[in-house]
Parts: sequence; C-alpha cells; structure tokens
Amino acid sequence: MGYSFRNDYSEGCHQSILEAMLKSNLDQQVGYGEDEFNIEAKNILREKMGNPNADIHLVSGGTQANLIVISSILRPYESVVAANTGHINVHETGAIEATGHKVNVVDSKDGKLTPEGIKEVLDFHTDEHMVKPRLVYISNTTEIGTVYNKKELGELWSFCKENDLLLFLDGARLGSALTSHENDLSLAELSKLVDVFYIGGTKNGALLGEAIVINNDELKKNFRFHLKQRGALLAKGRVLGLQFLELFKNDLFFDLAKHSNSMAIKLSQGIKEQGYEFLTKPESNQIFPILPNELIEKLSKKYEFYVWAKEDETSSSIRLVTSWATSEEAVDEFIQDLAKR
Amino acid sequence: MGYSFRNDYSEGCHQSILEAMLKSNLDQQVGYGEDEFNIEAKNILREKMGNPNADIHLVSGGTQANLIVISSILRPYESVVAANTGHINVHETGAIEATGHKVNVVDSKDGKLTPEGIKEVLDFHTDEHMVKPRLVYISNTTEIGTVYNKKELGELWSFCKENDLLLFLDGARLGSALTSHENDLSLAELSKLVDVFYIGGTKNGALLGEAIVINNDELKKNFRFHLKQRGALLAKGRVLGLQFLELFKNDLFFDLAKHSNSMAIKLSQGIKEQGYEFLTKPESNQIFPILPNELIEKLSKKYEFYVWAKEDETSSSIRLVTSWATSEEAVDEFIQDLAKR
Amino acid sequence: MGYSFRNDYSEGCHQSILEAMLKSNLDQQVGYGEDEFNIEAKNILREKMGNPNADIHLVSGGTQANLIVISSILRPYESVVAANTGHINVHETGAIEATGHKVNVVDSKDGKLTPEGIKEVLDFHTDEHMVKPRLVYISNTTEIGTVYNKKELGELWSFCKENDLLLFLDGARLGSALTSHENDLSLAELSKLVDVFYIGGTKNGALLGEAIVINNDELKKNFRFHLKQRGALLAKGRVLGLQFLELFKNDLFFDLAKHSNSMAIKLSQGIKEQGYEFLTKPESNQIFPILPNELIEKLSKKYEFYVWAKEDETSSSIRLVTSWATSEEAVDEFIQDLAKR
Amino acid sequence: MGYSFRNDYSEGCHQSILEAMLKSNLDQQVGYGEDEFNIEAKNILREKMGNPNADIHLVSGGTQANLIVISSILRPYESVVAANTGHINVHETGAIEATGHKVNVVDSKDGKLTPEGIKEVLDFHTDEHMVKPRLVYISNTTEIGTVYNKKELGELWSFCKENDLLLFLDGARLGSALTSHENDLSLAELSKLVDVFYIGGTKNGALLGEAIVINNDELKKNFRFHLKQRGALLAKGRVLGLQFLELFKNDLFFDLAKHSNSMAIKLSQGIKEQGYEFLTKPESNQIFPILPNELIEKLSKKYEFYVWAKEDETSSSIRLVTSWATSEEAVDEFIQDLAKR
Repeated sequence: MGYSFRNDYSEGCHQSILEAMLKSNLDQQVGYGEDEFNIEAKNILREKMGNPNADIHLVSGGTQANLIVISSILRPYESVVAANTGHINVHETGAIEATGHKVNVVDSKDGKLTPEGIKEVLDFHTDEHMVKPRLVYISNTTEIGTVYNKKELGELWSFCKENDLLLFLDGARLGSALTSHENDLSLAELSKLVDVFYIGGTKNGALLGEAIVINNDELKKNFRFHLKQRGALLAKGRVLGLQFLELFKNDLFFDLAKHSNSMAIKLSQGIKEQGYEFLTKPESNQIFPILPNELIEKLSKKYEFYVWAKEDETSSSIRLVTSWATSEEAVDEFIQDLAKR
Repeated sequence: MGYSFRNDYSEGCHQSILEAMLKSNLDQQVGYGEDEFNIEAKNILREKMGNPNADIHLVSGGTQANLIVISSILRPYESVVAANTGHINVHETGAIEATGHKVNVVDSKDGKLTPEGIKEVLDFHTDEHMVKPRLVYISNTTEIGTVYNKKELGELWSFCKENDLLLFLDGARLGSALTSHENDLSLAELSKLVDVFYIGGTKNGALLGEAIVINNDELKKNFRFHLKQRGALLAKGRVLGLQFLELFKNDLFFDLAKHSNSMAIKLSQGIKEQGYEFLTKPESNQIFPILPNELIEKLSKKYEFYVWAKEDETSSSIRLVTSWATSEEAVDEFIQDLAKR
Repeated sequence: MGYSFRNDYSEGCHQSILEAMLKSNLDQQVGYGEDEFNIEAKNILREKMGNPNADIHLVSGGTQANLIVISSILRPYESVVAANTGHINVHETGAIEATGHKVNVVDSKDGKLTPEGIKEVLDFHTDEHMVKPRLVYISNTTEIGTVYNKKELGELWSFCKENDLLLFLDGARLGSALTSHENDLSLAELSKLVDVFYIGGTKNGALLGEAIVINNDELKKNFRFHLKQRGALLAKGRVLGLQFLELFKNDLFFDLAKHSNSMAIKLSQGIKEQGYEFLTKPESNQIFPILPNELIEKLSKKYEFYVWAKEDETSSSIRLVTSWATSEEAVDEFIQDLAKR
Repeated sequence: MGYSFRNDYSEGCHQSILEAMLKSNLDQQVGYGEDEFNIEAKNILREKMGNPNADIHLVSGGTQANLIVISSILRPYESVVAANTGHINVHETGAIEATGHKVNVVDSKDGKLTPEGIKEVLDFHTDEHMVKPRLVYISNTTEIGTVYNKKELGELWSFCKENDLLLFLDGARLGSALTSHENDLSLAELSKLVDVFYIGGTKNGALLGEAIVINNDELKKNFRFHLKQRGALLAKGRVLGLQFLELFKNDLFFDLAKHSNSMAIKLSQGIKEQGYEFLTKPESNQIFPILPNELIEKLSKKYEFYVWAKEDETSSSIRLVTSWATSEEAVDEFIQDLAKR
C-alpha cells in the first residue's frame, strides 16, 4: 500500500494517549463511563466551553453519535434536515431511517446549510400528511471540506430558534474546523450556537471516541438510557475517557488539528502552483483538487486517495485528506511527483 | 474505592495488547475493520475453530453484538427466545425491542435454556396473531455463572434444527466457560453447535471487543451493512483487530480465563470452608455466595461487589467476579476478612 | 358452520348504522376524519364524558389503537407494563415491540393489574441498563372477562400519578364492562381515571372503529401525525364517524352492550345450574365454563367456540362470547344441548 | 362547502356495495379476513388476473398497504427507490422510514420512474456505507395523473429483473389507469410485470379497501403476520371482502373508473377549449390545468379543489379530481363558470 491520503484515520493514536493508557492500565475503575478519566475529561471540556451545565457523553464513533443524538430528540413523526452531502444522508447505511426518522434533504453546492434552504423544507411540510421537520443537522467541517464562520452559524442558530427547530452539529472534524484559517469561532462560542454537537476524537488523534455535548436542558434527560439501548455504553468506558483527557488537558486537540490543516495547506498550495483548480476552496484537512485522469492514475500507483467525481471527459476531482500524523516528507514528495508528470 | 470484585472489566487490558498497539501505532492501515490485524486475527480464529468459512466481525461490546446479530436475522414478526436471566431480557434497556423484536422469556432457575422450556414457547405461539419464535439466545457462561456442557448444548442444537430455529450463543464470558472445570467443549466443538456466537474480549483481558462468528451461510449475507447501520464499524477498526490478534495468536485468551476461574475457585473454596452456601454452583468467574447481611455490610466497606438478592430475613446473595487481573493477594485477603467476622 | 359463540364480531353491524350510511352516502364530505359525522360524534362523546377538552380520534381496530397510542407516548427507552393476559402481550404479533418498546409483564390470575404488581416492575428497573417503565396498560373488560370497579381503577390511577406513570385503558370491550352487573363506573367517571383510553365499536355493534380518547393534555400534541404515519387515517373517515354517531347519538352503544351481557348471564346461569364451574367469574360478555372434554367435543359439532385451556385430565375451559347480535334462541338451545349430554 | 373536485373520496360508496352489506349483514362469518366474501373476492381476482397462485390481502388504505408491503420485503439495510412525486416520499408522514427504511428519490418531471433514473441510484450506492436499493416503487396512475403504458412498464420490469430489484406498483388509482385512453395494459398483463401491487378500492367506489396482490412466491411467506403486526387485520374483515366482491364480480370496478375518466376528459376538453394549458397531459381522473390566479380565486368560492403550485406571477396550477360519483351536471357547470370569467 502506498502512502495514504485516503483519510485521517489510517494511523493509531497520538503517542501520549497510549502512554496514559499504559500508565493507568491496572487502576481499577468504575465501568460504563463513570470512571475518573471520564469525569476529569468532561470537567475540562465544560471549563473550556464556559458551560458548567453541559451534559457530555463519550461514544465510539460518528455514526453512533449521529443516530443516538437524532433518535433521542425526535418524536416518531419528526424529521431531520440535512444537506445532500451530509454524512447522515448517504454515508451511514440508512442509520437514521433505521431509528424511524426521515432525513429531509437540501441541495447544497458547498456542503453548508443556510436559513433559505431550510425554509424551503419548512414551507413544503404543512400538515399531518407529511413529516414535521424538527432538527437541523450540519457538519463542521462539512463533508466537502468547507468551514462555517461565526456569521453563518449565528444566522442558522437564529433561524432555528425563530422556527422552533433544534440545531445539531456533527463535529467529526471539528478540530480541523476550529483551527482553519477561515474559522473565527472559539470552541466556547460555537458551543453556544447549537443545541447539541459532538467533538470528534477519532479523526484527530484519538484511538476512537466522539464527545457528545448537550447544551439544551430539554435534551439532557435520561440520555444514558439511549446510549445503553443503542449499544454505545462501553464496559471499559475508561478508554474513551482517557482519549479526551489527553486531548484536552492541554491543547493537544488543537495542536494536532493545526498540524493536519497546515499539511493540507501545503499540499493545496503545491497543487495550485502547478495550475490546478479545486472542487471546493481548500479550508481544512480535506482538499479536492481537479486533476487530469491520467495523472490521477499515475499518482494512484504510489499514493492512496479517493477519486471523488468525474468533472469532465478528461479530468476528475480527488479527495486528499491529511491528519495529525501526516508527515511533511510525504506532502513534499506528493507535490514533487505531481510536478514530474 | 475498595478492591473491586464488582465485575471483570475494572482494569484496562493485558499488557501485551498495549505493547502491540504501541508497536504498530504509526503503521498506516485500511479503515473499518479491513486492516491487516483484523485479517490475521480472523484467520487465526477460523483455524482454531476448524472452520475456514466462518464469517467473523469484531464489534465494541456485548449489547451491540446482541442487537446487531438478532436484528440481522429476524424478519419483523419473528421473536427471540431467552431465559428470564438472559442479558437481552432485562439488562440491555430494551435494545432488542428497539430493533422491533419481542423477547419471549422462559423462566430458568440456573440461567440455562432447555428444549422443554423452548418447546413451551413454541406450543403457545400458534398463528399470525402472535409472534413467530425463530431464534434461541443462550449465554455461556450464563448471567448467573453456570456453564453449558456438551450434552446440554448438543440437545439444544438438535432441538433447534428439528424445529427450524436458529441458535445464537452470547459468549461475553466464553473464555471463562471454556476453561471451567465443568466444561467439556473445545472452542471448535462449540462453534459447530450454534448458528452464530460471539467470543467476548472485553471481559477477558481486551480493552474492548467481541468477535461475532457466523457459521450458518444464510446469516452471512451483507452483514457489514448491519454493522454500519447500527454504528458498529469503527473507523480505526485496527484497535479491535489487535485485541483479538494478541488474545489468540498464542493462547493468551485461554490463559487469562484460566487465571480468572482459578481465582474464583479459590474464593469459593475459602467461602465454602467457612460454611456458607451459594445461590448457584460455582463454575466460572462469577460466584454467588449467600452471606449474613451484617457480614455483607462489613465487607462492603473494604470491597466492591454487587448485592444480588435478598435470600431471607438475615442473609443475601452477593456476586463476586474475578478477572484476568484479579490478584491472588486480594483473594486471600477477602477470605481472611470473611473469617474475621 | 354452527352457531358461533366464538367472538363478538361474527356479524356485520347494527341495522341503524347501515341505514345512516345509506342515507348520507352521496353527501360530499371532507376526507381523513374531518367530516361532519366525525365532528358531531366527537362532540357527543365529549358531552357524555363531561370533558369538552378531550381529544378524540377514530381508528379501525384495536391493535392499531394500541400501537399508535403506546408509540405516541413513549420515548425510545420507555416501556409499557401489562398483565400477562394483556392483549398487547401475546395477541398482537409483537406490534408494540415493532414500534421499539418493551412490554413488561405482570402475572395476573384475573387479568387485572394492581398497584402491587406494577410496583414490583418499578422496583426491579433501577437504572439506565434497563428500560424505564412509563405507561400502564389495562383492559376493561379484561381478556378473560373480568371488570374493573371504581375502587380498583381509582387505586391504579392514584398509584400511577404518585409514580409518574401514565394510565392507558384498552376498551375494546368497554361497552360490556360499563354495563356489567359488577360495574359501578359511568363513562364520564372512568374517563377521568385514565390518561388515555379507547371505546371499542367493532365488538359492540359497529362495522369497525375504536374511539381513542385523550384526556392528558401532554399526550394530545400532533396526534394526527401518528395516525397518518401508522396508516390509520382513512380517506373516507366518514365511515368511522358515522359508526360512533349512531352508537352514541342515543344510547345504542349501551343498549347493545346490555343485550350482549344479558345473553352471557343467561348462558352462564344455564351452565351453572347444570353444576359446572367457571375459570373466572362471569361478569361480562365473555364467559369461561369448565366442561368435560367429551361434552366439549359434542358441543363443538353444533357450535363454534374457542377451547381456552386444559384444566385437568378430563376437562377444559372454553370461551363463550355473546354479542349485540346473539339471539336468545341460540342461547336457549345451547343450554338445552348442554343438558342433553 | 361548494361542489368538490378536491379528491375521489368525498362520497361514500357505490350503492350496490351498501346493498350487499345490508343483505349479508346478519350472516355469521369467520373474522380477520377469512370469511366467505374475502374468499370469493380473491378467487375472482385471481381468475381475472389469470394467476391462480397470487396471494391477495385486503387492507384499509393506501399508506397502510405501502408500509406493510415495503417493510415486509426489505432487510434492515435495504431501501426503496421512488420518484420525488411518489406518495411514499412526501405524503405519508415518513411511514416508510418509521419502519426503518430509506426512500431513495429520483427526480421526475412526469411522475414516472425510468430505468435510467433507477440506474443512477444504483450506481451511487456502492458499498456497506450506504443503503442497498432493493425495491422500486411506482404509482399507476402517478400522483400527477400520468399513466404507464405497456412498453414503459415492461422496460422497468426487465431492468428490475436484470438488477436483482423487486418492483412494487401502488395502484391506489389503478382503475383510472387501466381505463385511461393512454392505457394498453390489461389487469392480467400488468399483474405479470410487477412482483407485488395493489388495486385501490377507496378511490374507485368502495367504502374502504386496497387489495394487495403478491405474485412473487418469495414475498408471500407469512404475510398475514405482517398485517396483524401493523394493525391491518380487521376483526370484521368481511367488510373489505364485500367491497372487492361487489367491485369485481361483474365489471363494476372498470365501469366506475371509466365514468371517472370520462368526467375528467370532459372537464379537460372544456378547459382546453377556453385556451388554458395543463401541467401534465390529462390522462386520468386527476387533471392539472394552469389558470389565472384571479380566476382560481373566483372558482374557489363555488368549488372545492386543491391549488397545486404557483406557475408564474399571475397563474397557478390546480388539481381537479373526478370520481365514480362525479355528476355530469357539475362538470358542465364548472366549464360554464370558467367561461363566464
């Protein structure tokens, strides 16, 4: 297998996390997420968000987080609104529908939702013969690498509150979003513009783990019942606690994301300098250059990446993903190989 | 917190697993369980079971394994039969029902199902106004520490095949079962007497992980779709692969279980010698001594354990669980403290 | 086919309902239950119950009513408590579980639930590893013909309110209950001792139809969405409206039930006089005499009925059901045939 | 309320059905759809379709038929493909999703699906991270009044069989489709080009009732369990049996549909003659003329109809629906009123 830019979960986890696991390995701890590491990690997160009342729950992965959060909120006839590119729409094997709920889709060029797009859905759903849209799902970064800024998120938040909608942010790549050059939101600010969101660990240096943060008091009740029912309460929940403790006790989470973003910027600049365009503006650790098909074929012999879409007869977009573990050497080499074509 | 006999997941994992994780940490691997560690672990398991065609899937926990296996098998109107003590009946927050299926309950004194018990359920369900029992769920060891022997499992298997039923074995504590002094089944033999089962890692020295093994060809189709839909496909599936590779590449899995069982035997002998009875015969790493309430209260100041049930006005049963990590010193001390009363 | 005492839905409907249908047949009416007949029928019902704020919805059948009411109320992790004999427990093909919810079963000799029985379920379900019982389901008459009196229902209601439980009464045979000699509740009184209930039409002279009555304001919201989602909103909802308009515009509903009960009393007295016992005390239109097996066989050549259960080696209980349409001649003849044995 | 062209279920049912109900009202019949009328109606239908092995089940309404058929067929991870205008997509309150399944949407101008449209969905869904499309849902007539001809349906059928897809036809308005001037299919021919379909009674002269016809042997097994579980087995199933017996024992079903279509043709010709266009070509009992907004407002004072969509600043499309009960006088009057503007 060549060097992989296929995703941001090809390696294990940051060394310090493994070390913390080794160090505490034989400590006896309470099960199911009520261990000391969970408690401490959650306290730190609450402090960083300036929200001492946030409910925080650590789960294993993004699809699990999405299906539990969404099904915990909606009444049977209520639906969730998402961009067509939203992870829950196509890439989770109908996990949301399997909990009984429709995903209302809004077409989006840049992966983001806007009040106008959501309003169209609301206007269309007028009575009991149709589902009742109740929750808005957005991803930051989006699935095509774009980043919400404060104005955009604030407008969504206002629109939701005016229309009795709840706002849920999928932060599988929140680290990359918050350290993007396009970002003007702090974690604390972002956390106040959503009802519930999660902070992705898996794609930012953890072995596994997403931290669901519930701000809206009405959504907090009995949440652990939902976790258990969906198979998300790990007996050794300590593993999840340790991931987030290490990521947040200092600023490792942000440092790792910055490295990831800087590798993507370097890659995108090298590509741009050779005259290639991009499907969406490079803003985070996922970039989508458009390259000639024969170049793509050549590169694919040495590198792993995902061919995203056919753009015209002779060229396609590809997805390159950098991570906390991406080496600068690999980036340099890729750019050189691109130039050699 | 005192020394804990509360469960078998109070500690982290066996040291060799952490070392293997450290060693391979920066290897780039394919995601979602298709990495080299998964492949190798599954090959070893297939070989140990003498079944080159078994489908094997690694998931994070027992409730997750149970809900995915059961919902993958049953048609909407079909049900699963379980003992009243079965984990899926009470202790999974309705996880099976949340996938749409009824659990038909058979009362059992020793935690085991028998053909007679299942037959009563079949005889009762006669037409389309009732669910159609289709799957039998058993646990080995059972939730109250008992172990199925070859004759018992063989009779269940024959009964199931004669009655067009499928047999699923929850092996969250399969290690303890297979190394019990009551056991006369090898892993290979057991695997041929069920349609599907899982091998528990979490409660036998792994950080997390249960290995679902599907023998029945009809149950194999598109199983990964079920995993994804229920949020069970970890991006860094390598973590799960490594657990089972370490547990099974030599006989670590069995060695850890033997230690756990021997600690339980030692505990139960010490308790027996002081004249106490047991709720069920000590056969595995969960034992249920019946003790005077005031002794229980005294012990509970120094040790963690679960008070199981009131037995009469002055005594109760407690559950003591040993694990791969239980120290002989702790066992000795507990017995001494018991004698001191 | 012999004369049928098998159930109370062997005939069509009371003649006056068909006449009302004929008379209004070509009137154009709004669809989906918002027609004039629905409106008028619901107004009459609200008046009879002395509750101008009750929400009323007409659906086609009992299983449909049960599954919609229960799934509309419960959060995903919540369960419903029922007697083992409860219709939702065995006789609805897992309809409740198919909406995602567990039925917690309480063993009951007489088909009724008591505060003590429910309390055992509550005491057993203590944390997030188990479902949270939230709703209590009772039937009046019960599935074995018994009737709740005011004291019993009042105690259940108080217990539910003290324990944050909701109370739902399945009134598939409510007419028979309210006109039983054991009954001391008016429809208005009963309606104030439950959060939600339904009034059965199908088994008391209607072609089809059950009237769901919601008293608890919190359960009213958006109920028509649930109806539509489960396929219960009939395009020609007028049919259901007309049934209940005819049954309640005068006291036809009660008159029909009285006839049904009086036929059952006559039957049970005739049986008693010949020295036979009953499984449960005859209180409504379902009676359960215990007869010698050879007599049962003889009777079954001339009459249709359900053999309920084997009672000892030589006798069994049978279920005899009378209805609004049962003829006194048939009752007399059955008693004579019984005597002839 | 003015004369209603709002839908085809404003009136009761054809007089002969009520008469048959009256005549048989006091016959005792077996419950739950196993009565003589059901048996006879189904035999007649099988004969008319030239398919003695078809399984036929009568249910109350279209949403109920759709959700039961679809959920009976699909495995949890499988999806159904529908046109954006398909009834299951928007107008059933997420009934399909509530059974756990995603609806994959294909945009369609004329309400019909084509092999090309379905192929796009198939090509997009490539692995276990996405649902697996397995069933194709079409409506005939479509929700916007168009009709499939033999060539179109045959091509869909062939495409489905080549791609391991099942084909389900929603025939809520099948009568109108089969008697349309655009139709070249007999009921027997159509029934051989689908795996399962239903024949709509409610919108073609019955009080209620849709006849689900299953041709594909693999889809027949235990279907009555699905009916019961979803609350669709009416105790007095005789009501449904009688509807279809009356509709099909002679050709009443087709005669009523012909009347409905001829009224729609007359309406559309009258509208056309006054120079107005249509949203879709008038082919069945639903027509969609585009009229000036002020004319619409004037007409709406005297007639009931649905304003479909804004077409430009000054005009909108409306939906006019005729039925078996539409009077020629009302049609004439509408046309005259239109001319008077």
